[in-house]
Amino acid sequence: MTFDALTDLQVAHEMADAARAAILPFFRRADLTAENKLTEGFDPVTAADRAAEQAMREVLGRHRPDDGIWGEEFGQSAGQSGRQWVLDPIDGTRGFISGTPTWGVLIALSTEDGPILGIVDQPYIGERFVGSPEGAVMTGPHGVAELKTRDTQSLADAVLFTTFPEVGSPDERAGFEAVARKVRLTRYGMDCYAYALLAAGQVDLVIEAGLNAYDIQGPIGVIEAAGGIVTDWQGGPAHNGGRVLAAANADIHAAALNILKSK
Amino acid sequence: MTFDALTDLQVAHEMADAARAAILPFFRRADLTAENKLTEGFDPVTAADRAAEQAMREVLGRHRPDDGIWGEEFGQSAGQSGRQWVLDPIDGTRGFISGTPTWGVLIALSTEDGPILGIVDQPYIGERFVGSPEGAVMTGPHGVAELKTRDTQSLADAVLFTTFPEVGSPDERAGFEAVARKVRLTRYGMDCYAYALLAAGQVDLVIEAGLNAYDIQGPIGVIEAAGGIVTDWQGGPAHNGGRVLAAANADIHAAALNILKSK
Repeated sequence: MTFDALTDLQVAHEMADAARAAILPFFRRADLTAENKLTEGFDPVTAADRAAEQAMREVLGRHRPDDGIWGEEFGQSAGQSGRQWVLDPIDGTRGFISGTPTWGVLIALSTEDGPILGIVDQPYIGERFVGSPEGAVMTGPHGVAELKTRDTQSLADAVLFTTFPEVGSPDERAGFEAVARKVRLTRYGMDCYAYALLAAGQVDLVIEAGLNAYDIQGPIGVIEAAGGIVTDWQGGPAHNGGRVLAAANADIHAAALNILKSK
Repeated sequence: MTFDALTDLQVAHEMADAARAAILPFFRRADLTAENKLTEGFDPVTAADRAAEQAMREVLGRHRPDDGIWGEEFGQSAGQSGRQWVLDPIDGTRGFISGTPTWGVLIALSTEDGPILGIVDQPYIGERFVGSPEGAVMTGPHGVAELKTRDTQSLADAVLFTTFPEVGSPDERAGFEAVARKVRLTRYGMDCYAYALLAAGQVDLVIEAGLNAYDIQGPIGVIEAAGGIVTDWQGGPAHNGGRVLAAANADIHAAALNILKSK
């Protein structure tokens, strides 16, 4: 394998820095072009999205040429190392085109068992949430802080996030709503930022459906390093996407899973 | 009247600075105390909320002793000037206790005809949206920019925000949803930040119900200075709260109002 002097964590930071620089010139620009990727629904892809993935791939080309890459914009390329970098250059494109500071750059380094390193980066605020074998930490406009999920024990005390009230299919929406009825507070609209808030000990549960692998692998790397748990709605691995339950700790995870499983 | 050398705009900035300093030590603190102000529902009031309003009142006591004050936390005090400062120290307390960067400090200077100056400040990001007779401008982590609403002409091209999918009463929800069915994109969860995005030309419509005067006067001051329109759902003044329709321009306002009026 061809590894240079940088650690994986240093490479990941360099990728996130490159993505920030590529994206920010496009954010909140009035003349931003949004194409329609799907014939149904609304999934804009911006020039920023592509520029950021390209910039991250260039960093990998320099420092990790033997690793595979799976990016939202440019697909999969095989590696020789058994490791893969999983990239979503702009997660939350609807938030991005609305000017909200809740979209993010998602980066994961994964084996076939799932992420071993994750980043959720919010370029506009200048916040970066990082999980790796070296720990979980955030940097932002007010300094550096350790990331640690909280120990909420009961759904009645829990704060739950998802991106859209619809969540997914009618069945999936029903599952989400069954949990939502039990919690203290349900909020919407945060895109990947909700996972960062979970890692930072601010919220207790994030429940989503219909995710792609690149939507969740970065968050998994951050949340697991901060003490949280991410599974699918049956308690199995979530790194392939689909239905995702992210929880601050084992107790609150079990309480939510118990409801989702029965749906 | 007792005015000192500072302009109203300078006083407003000093108030917003004081509120930032008062609030930030409490934001994302794990041990934050949340009390229940209402016997039903969920409306936490934090120490930060009170500290920020107190700090803003101290600024007014020094610089504008003759003006009236109406603050969310400490109520109304009469003035002798015919002018009133209308304050919501933390608009979006649910967002605040969840760690999101979408709550804000709202400041308005108003006569009985409505706001003549408004501020929406987001202390964590360090963004301030200001409207006054001197113009509309934002400052933030990436510099200074003029605020100008956009010229979207058709609901089919419009981005619509509200805070909760429930919006308000069943009738109010139905009115909102009738507009939501016509627009390109509907998003939730931004608290007062949605009004700032409208002033910044990022979104086209914000529709809410059940607002208090102090929830909307700051946003009105910013949005009107940036070229937008804020009314109630009948097209009348919105500065007393209630049902609010904020729009980027007269055309998109008329299109949304036409639907809301018929509900």
